[in-house]
Amino acid sequence: MESKGLRVQESDRTTARTRRATLTDVAALAGVSVGTASKALSGNGRMKAETRQRVLEAVQSLDFRPNQQAQNLHTGRSWTVGLMTTDGIGRFSTPVLLGAEDALGAGKISVLLCDTRGDLIRERHYLQNLMDRRVDGIIVTGRRTDPRPPLSDIPDGVPVVYVLSPSTNAADMSVVSDDAHGCRLAVEHLLASGRTRVAHITGPAHHAAAVDRALQTEQLLARSSLQLSTGRTHFGDWSEAWGRRAAEAVLRAAPDTDALFCGNDQIARGATDALRERGTAVPDQVAVVGYDNWDTMALAARPPLTTIDMDLGQIGRVAALRLLAAIDDNATPGIHPVPCRLVVRDSA
Amino acid sequence: MESKGLRVQESDRTTARTRRATLTDVAALAGVSVGTASKALSGNGRMKAETRQRVLEAVQSLDFRPNQQAQNLHTGRSWTVGLMTTDGIGRFSTPVLLGAEDALGAGKISVLLCDTRGDLIRERHYLQNLMDRRVDGIIVTGRRTDPRPPLSDIPDGVPVVYVLSPSTNAADMSVVSDDAHGCRLAVEHLLASGRTRVAHITGPAHHAAAVDRALQTEQLLARSSLQLSTGRTHFGDWSEAWGRRAAEAVLRAAPDTDALFCGNDQIARGATDALRERGTAVPDQVAVVGYDNWDTMALAARPPLTTIDMDLGQIGRVAALRLLAAIDDNATPGIHPVPCRLVVRDSA
Repeated sequence: MESKGLRVQESDRTTARTRRATLTDVAALAGVSVGTASKALSGNGRMKAETRQRVLEAVQSLDFRPNQQAQNLHTGRSWTVGLMTTDGIGRFSTPVLLGAEDALGAGKISVLLCDTRGDLIRERHYLQNLMDRRVDGIIVTGRRTDPRPPLSDIPDGVPVVYVLSPSTNAADMSVVSDDAHGCRLAVEHLLASGRTRVAHITGPAHHAAAVDRALQTEQLLARSSLQLSTGRTHFGDWSEAWGRRAAEAVLRAAPDTDALFCGNDQIARGATDALRERGTAVPDQVAVVGYDNWDTMALAARPPLTTIDMDLGQIGRVAALRLLAAIDDNATPGIHPVPCRLVVRDSA
Repeated sequence: MESKGLRVQESDRTTARTRRATLTDVAALAGVSVGTASKALSGNGRMKAETRQRVLEAVQSLDFRPNQQAQNLHTGRSWTVGLMTTDGIGRFSTPVLLGAEDALGAGKISVLLCDTRGDLIRERHYLQNLMDRRVDGIIVTGRRTDPRPPLSDIPDGVPVVYVLSPSTNAADMSVVSDDAHGCRLAVEHLLASGRTRVAHITGPAHHAAAVDRALQTEQLLARSSLQLSTGRTHFGDWSEAWGRRAAEAVLRAAPDTDALFCGNDQIARGATDALRERGTAVPDQVAVVGYDNWDTMALAARPPLTTIDMDLGQIGRVAALRLLAAIDDNATPGIHPVPCRLVVRDSA
């Protein structure tokens, strides 16, 4: 691709840019010095009300907009927040990101997007870039609920909030989903509808989301003097195929199972498919509860899934508000869980 | 939430920020004036090689990093690009966004994220914000392939590229998926495997993606002197439930149908479910081809789907590179289609 020399481009650009009115134009039209015009706009310095009024009228008639970058040099704030996703922008981090962007945008704060893809070199590169741009704070979001090491080399005065994946450092701020609450909603819903033979099918045993929810489920059943119908949690992966295989295995091992609590909606959907194909009625014979409220899965399942919604948008908003508070010197260290919602459809 | 007065916060912040070395520190350590230090760093102005060397050594020993905002005021570039999504960040815009971010990040350009949610007031608010921050260019991405009106009130010299949803103004730059190419890959694959009774099931008749692909499919069949097995395209919605219903209806109306080309993977997946449940073997009796290569759908289908991949990441990268060229005064107006890929799995 051919390109003109840099000098020529810069001068072209300058020409294009100067079509916008400058502070000098404003001062000339108002008949004041540039310094007076600047003072009138910033609200600093004494001057006659009439002078200030003339400057404001000139601003309006020229449609002058102050240069944000020049202003930022004065206030010491960039009104910019870095949003780092550590493992791509996927089904989990997207709603968090939108929630955060929503809360920040309302306060006229811009979001600089960085996708590190879990690559440490990319993370350092982006971090340096965010520092060069003098961001006021950073939101770090991951997909997994497993704790992650904190960002290194963050200068003092630049707050960071970790979302979904909490920081391993308890002195950091982390906003996470309340897994214990989600499990309680699911198990209590099943018990309230008279189910007593509950099986639990979930993801890999090395994922915190799978292990934590399994532990919670066992403890919640124990509180009602119940045990898992098959005596143990069925760890596998987060797929429909695993849901189908595991549901088959559970019903073979414990035919009196009357409920399946599944670690995500894909597993739950696979389970409903397997149950339908073996002639087991859902929810009449076996109730099924999923996790995530991923509409694509939950609504397409037959029957549509009763499931737990982590309220990811709310998690993003809470994280953004805590970051803003920290920027204003009101940091709240520790792990902050955000409650879940039970979404009742036809499967349980 | 209680907050200290603004004056106090600003002074706290200044204290935190000044722990970073300033240009004054560099000048003092090098034993030169601030002006000389500045010239040494920018490479402008004459000075002894030894003086420049002393400044660079001071920079290194103090780990000084120039203030990006102050530098931008000199270069007239912000090294920032606005990324506007017009209808949330979903399954389609996310990979586009990551592709763009990838191409831009490699050039040290930061991405400012704006989610307008198709709301005109939000769009104006964000646009103003991007202008105030002096972005070098803007990428606008939508989910639908329907053309959209161009952004209004963009100052001269700020290039814009539209992605997925092209601009209605032919003088704008738009990067889109090559729907005609995608349909050709699908239909030619079916014909090459000996299918001659092809039905087409797709989304709403008011979506460009549905109408364009239907037209392409009919024309491609006509070129081989073939017609749709049911004589017409089946418009509905983009859901699995529609795929199930439509596949049933097609097989009732034209029992000799030997292939289904579906407008997206959800429809294709629904179709495979309906075919399996009525005892029709896929692909032996009826081949099924989807569109999108959405792994969640394509891999979970039984059998896994042969489908068209729009290469959304590549679309994002192409858009970002065209925007960078336009920023360097090499704009390429018009609609630029990006080719698709055929992904062959077991369903056809």
